Amino acid sequence: MGITDDVTHESLSFDPDWEIERAEVVRAVFFGLGADGTVGANKNSIKIIGEQTELSAQGYFVYDSKKSGAITISHLRFGRGRIRSAYLVRRASFVACHQFNFLDRYDVVSYAEPGATLLLNAPYATDDVWQHLPREVQDEIIAKQLRVFVIDAYKVAGEAGMGRRINTVMQTCFFAVSGVLPRDEAIGHIKTAIRKTYAQKGESIVEKNFAAVDATLAHLFEMEVPARATTLRARPPIVAAAAPDFVQRVTAAMLANHGDDLPVSAFPVDGTWPVGTTQWEKRNIALEIPVWDPSVCIQCNKCALVCPHAAIRAKVFTPASAASAPPTFKSIPYKGHDFEGSAYSIQVAPEDCTGCNLCVRVCPAKDKSNPRHKAIDMAPQSPLLDAERENYAFFLKLPEVDRTLVRADVKSTQFLQPLFEYSGACSGCGETPYIKLLTQLFGDRTLIANATGCSSIYGGNLPTTPYRTNADGRGPAWSNSLFEDNAEFGFGFRLAVDKQAEYARELLQALAPRLGDDMVVPLLEHGIPGEAELAIRRTQILALRAKLAGIEGDDARRLELVADYLAHKSVWIVGGDGWAYDIGFGGLDHVLAMDRNVNVLVLDTEVYSNTGGQASKATPMGASAKFAVAGKSVGKKDLGLLAMSYGHVYVASVAFGAKDQQTVRAFLEAESYPGPSLILAYSHCIAHGYDLAFGAEHQKVAVDTGYWPLYRYDPRLRAGGANPLQLDSPAPKTKLAEFVREEARYRMVEQRDPQRFRALMEQAQADIVYRRSLYERMSRE
Amino acid sequence: MGITDDVTHESLSFDPDWEIERAEVVRAVFFGLGADGTVGANKNSIKIIGEQTELSAQGYFVYDSKKSGAITISHLRFGRGRIRSAYLVRRASFVACHQFNFLDRYDVVSYAEPGATLLLNAPYATDDVWQHLPREVQDEIIAKQLRVFVIDAYKVAGEAGMGRRINTVMQTCFFAVSGVLPRDEAIGHIKTAIRKTYAQKGESIVEKNFAAVDATLAHLFEMEVPARATTLRARPPIVAAAAPDFVQRVTAAMLANHGDDLPVSAFPVDGTWPVGTTQWEKRNIALEIPVWDPSVCIQCNKCALVCPHAAIRAKVFTPASAASAPPTFKSIPYKGHDFEGSAYSIQVAPEDCTGCNLCVRVCPAKDKSNPRHKAIDMAPQSPLLDAERENYAFFLKLPEVDRTLVRADVKSTQFLQPLFEYSGACSGCGETPYIKLLTQLFGDRTLIANATGCSSIYGGNLPTTPYRTNADGRGPAWSNSLFEDNAEFGFGFRLAVDKQAEYARELLQALAPRLGDDMVVPLLEHGIPGEAELAIRRTQILALRAKLAGIEGDDARRLELVADYLAHKSVWIVGGDGWAYDIGFGGLDHVLAMDRNVNVLVLDTEVYSNTGGQASKATPMGASAKFAVAGKSVGKKDLGLLAMSYGHVYVASVAFGAKDQQTVRAFLEAESYPGPSLILAYSHCIAHGYDLAFGAEHQKVAVDTGYWPLYRYDPRLRAGGANPLQLDSPAPKTKLAEFVREEARYRMVEQRDPQRFRALMEQAQADIVYRRSLYERMSRE
Repeated sequence: MGITDDVTHESLSFDPDWEIERAEVVRAVFFGLGADGTVGANKNSIKIIGEQTELSAQGYFVYDSKKSGAITISHLRFGRGRIRSAYLVRRASFVACHQFNFLDRYDVVSYAEPGATLLLNAPYATDDVWQHLPREVQDEIIAKQLRVFVIDAYKVAGEAGMGRRINTVMQTCFFAVSGVLPRDEAIGHIKTAIRKTYAQKGESIVEKNFAAVDATLAHLFEMEVPARATTLRARPPIVAAAAPDFVQRVTAAMLANHGDDLPVSAFPVDGTWPVGTTQWEKRNIALEIPVWDPSVCIQCNKCALVCPHAAIRAKVFTPASAASAPPTFKSIPYKGHDFEGSAYSIQVAPEDCTGCNLCVRVCPAKDKSNPRHKAIDMAPQSPLLDAERENYAFFLKLPEVDRTLVRADVKSTQFLQPLFEYSGACSGCGETPYIKLLTQLFGDRTLIANATGCSSIYGGNLPTTPYRTNADGRGPAWSNSLFEDNAEFGFGFRLAVDKQAEYARELLQALAPRLGDDMVVPLLEHGIPGEAELAIRRTQILALRAKLAGIEGDDARRLELVADYLAHKSVWIVGGDGWAYDIGFGGLDHVLAMDRNVNVLVLDTEVYSNTGGQASKATPMGASAKFAVAGKSVGKKDLGLLAMSYGHVYVASVAFGAKDQQTVRAFLEAESYPGPSLILAYSHCIAHGYDLAFGAEHQKVAVDTGYWPLYRYDPRLRAGGANPLQLDSPAPKTKLAEFVREEARYRMVEQRDPQRFRALMEQAQADIVYRRSLYERMSRE
Repeated sequence: MGITDDVTHESLSFDPDWEIERAEVVRAVFFGLGADGTVGANKNSIKIIGEQTELSAQGYFVYDSKKSGAITISHLRFGRGRIRSAYLVRRASFVACHQFNFLDRYDVVSYAEPGATLLLNAPYATDDVWQHLPREVQDEIIAKQLRVFVIDAYKVAGEAGMGRRINTVMQTCFFAVSGVLPRDEAIGHIKTAIRKTYAQKGESIVEKNFAAVDATLAHLFEMEVPARATTLRARPPIVAAAAPDFVQRVTAAMLANHGDDLPVSAFPVDGTWPVGTTQWEKRNIALEIPVWDPSVCIQCNKCALVCPHAAIRAKVFTPASAASAPPTFKSIPYKGHDFEGSAYSIQVAPEDCTGCNLCVRVCPAKDKSNPRHKAIDMAPQSPLLDAERENYAFFLKLPEVDRTLVRADVKSTQFLQPLFEYSGACSGCGETPYIKLLTQLFGDRTLIANATGCSSIYGGNLPTTPYRTNADGRGPAWSNSLFEDNAEFGFGFRLAVDKQAEYARELLQALAPRLGDDMVVPLLEHGIPGEAELAIRRTQILALRAKLAGIEGDDARRLELVADYLAHKSVWIVGGDGWAYDIGFGGLDHVLAMDRNVNVLVLDTEVYSNTGGQASKATPMGASAKFAVAGKSVGKKDLGLLAMSYGHVYVASVAFGAKDQQTVRAFLEAESYPGPSLILAYSHCIAHGYDLAFGAEHQKVAVDTGYWPLYRYDPRLRAGGANPLQLDSPAPKTKLAEFVREEARYRMVEQRDPQRFRALMEQAQADIVYRRSLYERMSRE
């Protein structure tokens, strides 16, 4: 499309209507949701047409680096002779929209040429679909005289036992409607492709796909297009009216897929992007959302802790502040001495929830009269949307808790505002609960160096970022350097922060005669961790600033610039196992070996999740990975043992699904430890191959089998003569097999070579026993 | 000087006599021996003149990358106004030769302009010096009318308690003779510089240097130069007449410092250099060499094992083969059943020995009637030279032992021919005995990937290499890639070797109908380690080659190319701690985590030795290093523990000076283990700051204090149900202080801040206790 450079004015203008496509080439565009299978199905279609017909085929697949759940656009061309169009399709004879709500959000129909075919996946009866289209879409269908075909693909897929995987259904529709191949021939090819793709995952998957293909044609209908538009409902704005100017002008354009049209002048000059912008994105991807039943709730806040998207939250507040609440807003008296007399509420962000189900699975509160009913249950989103949207807006306006009064337990920490919310992470992600907790505990004083990987993608993905500031304007400073240097990058943060603090103290001493010793002496003490300590120090700095304002001279101005560094800063180095165990390991090890106060959080999914599942040195024995389908023959690297062997490094191994209190404790200890700290955080992941609704429960199995031991190694204990290593999980209760059988990454290896798998599992089980015994011995003095 | 390109003929000719130096600039050239302090003293002189006078000063220092003991040439200029001569001095008014034997080797006097001053350090009385000069030097002194000054600097330094450090003495001579500054003023400056340079190393070092300065002038004399030459003795050839053509033409020119004059055509087209060339270098740097007394010897061969330069050797041979021995050649009947009836000899290479004294220190055999007399004692080299040169030449011609008969003990391994000899490593080096042992045990089947560091410098330093082949033409294949990728580099060797072997087996199978199953079937079995197995396999390959010669076709020719890969190959990845613990650690860890048969040898000097002593993660707590003089606050990284934690890696920690039999055993086990192996080899080093004659004894202290534990972790033992970890050193017998007090790297820290040092040592001692207890627990099941 070209760049519109209105800053240097050096860009060339062009005619957007100039057309160089060959008329005889079929052009098709497909709008899908990341991980719904659209891209994979289209790749299959290309193979079928390219290999089974005389036609040439071409495909471009456009998707951003968001995790599953974002938009994907597939641009396909088919035709006789070579296809040399090295650019995207702009006018297609076939346009498919695999997600009905995209029509409210993107200019899907603008891709259709006059007389083209439009295929819609719609959760409505065919006759009913028209009235659900926004005015702009109705107008354009009529003006372009499009043929419109409709299928309720989720219904077909669901009935075929495929859950939400609609790719096979939509691929069948494409071949049925486009006429590229004879129907029966096309269906034969689709089935062959299905067998080839899914055979490794088991025969039942193949059968389900076959059933979906067979059921599709009976549910595919052409819609009668009225002569004129029948609705007044216009497409809603991309972002709410309350969004700030920059979000309206820039972020919204990028969210609407019009980012390429933005002129150069729209972008921030220094590359710094506004934070907290995910709140304007409102992806609405959950079909069902949790509903809170206060009468059953025990107020444990576990639902809030495990939520990967900060979309279910807890608050305590004065009953009076709920006086103006919307009619359906729910609250009950708080149970507990710490905030006695307060009201308590659990509230869902209905448009930000991804429907992962994790909160419901961990909820321990059951209705005694109906054990299938819990304090939170899932319910369809649409009917709840308007009311819960209003409730959530009200909830957000309720005052945040006084941080100095919050205790160090799971329940209390969930009253702290998360400064990481609604990220683009996968539904059910096992990493983001740790990051969210980190921002709740320390976000207002934190600098985060983020390694490349999932966490850098959902952490800082244009056009939005999930990191935000609190009401005081404080929040994590976040940046991503390279895959290989993140530990060093964060180490640099620490050196810089310490140097600024040192400089501030020098200036304080220089200005002492004018500031007075009463003010200067307390501020010369190094800032220390802790909510109360931080509150006092911030008050001192405010007083300092007030006094500095009345003092002339360069030193006073300089001290104003660096005064905030007189308060404690928390440096966190965050990344995945690909970074920590492999690509960044040399640097990580070197930084741990230095004696500086940095905190390292390793989000261990045991595989390169972001790039699709290649083995890392964190991958356990016997698990398959991309390019290593035979199963890993070498055990997982013991990164924790290496770090402990230095003696001066705080090390913790945690799994929030198994023991959330231990996780919270490890984060607090790591941050308060004045040297390097390393937290190895078990993170369930779609790469493991099971429904992530069970992620937290599966973490418990990981710990119970000894697969993932929990421990904390605190060098401070040595000073008191105690053993620094504390084991937080008991001796394995069950066999590794309990854990392994739930995960497809293991089942694939077993299916491929059962004998080899058995040998690997025996070795892995023996390793667990050996390691446990080693750690037990280490923990005894 | 320019390049003489006689291949492309594109170089420009030039007039070597064209002179552009300004007449009023003083030019001085100094010939020194690496690490004799010449360069440091000259840098001091430049500072004195540049800072204390009106003169400008300039210095160029030319030395190759050889370890201490090689030639250094300092080119200095002093004069009024700016010095802009960006090139070396060719005609000097002052030439100093700090090593008398350089006159036999280099054109020292050619640098002197007519009427210049020549300063000689000579181990003779002044009147006696003239007759020891070779004819060429006498002629040139007379022709150029040089003034010649003489000092016996080693005598002066020795009497001042400075051992062989003659730098202060020679610097004083320079100022005394050159007249650049008034004598008294110069001496004042020298003393100030001495204090500045050595204060940190202790007051006694300063005092010794002062004493040397004061004694110098009384021992500096001008020599009367006769009117004509009085000797017939010409300068000896650089290399022996027996050296091969390439060595005569190319290597010798480079050794004589005339490498820049070699034309392009002299160099190997593909960059491959002939091996075993150190044998022609004959550096003659030992003032004293060991002398063997067979009547005291107990035939333990420890002297041969510890020799860093393979300059003292043991052999068994039939008494008959000694019949034609030179008159002073010594041999005695061999004691032992394995080679019963043989004769036994210990022989020194008098011109290759560096006089380090290690062999004498480790010799356990004392004369009962005179305990100060051992089976080997040091004696001045000169009187022994001619006879021992002849004896050594005879010794080398005696047949090598039958490798299949050699047992796996220290004594027996020293009958195996070293394929690594007379390297440029420092006198007394603690690394080279390990490499030598490696080549004795496996050299004829070994590929070595060498990390950058000392071992790459003395291992492959132009113009000579210490690696060599045996009489069959077999020897280590050796290469050096980068500092950061050596593990991966060697891993590639393994992959390539395995692939070639696989290809050879494929070809064998294809040719089976013509070769016959009797020949093919045994060869299809993978080659395995072991002398006997290798001998059998080599015989099989010889038979195969004989048969292939009679078979036509491409497959037969291809198999001839790769047939040698049917025999076992031993891949070794060698480097120092800077590589293994720091710069190459990420890659090393990754290679260890793979399940391939590579052997890693880490020569751990606990510091970046090659670049002058910067701290690595192997540097222990409390030791000083360059840029870290306050002493390291973090303990040494436990690389062995990390490797053991994988479970499938063979790991050994060895120290030949403490338990040589354990070292030999570890090498044999590592090589025979079919997966990755890691040997951590304690290597004493000049960077530790003590006389390396005591290196082996000091290793024993390192082990006795628990500072360096000995162990072997053999994953094969797990299969038998045994604990894989075997501790080979007992619980610490003495305190760390015993070890630490001998090393200057610790003493410097203590002197700087005794309180901090005490705290670090307490922590280090506690770490030793903790680690020992951890390892003990790990080794019990």
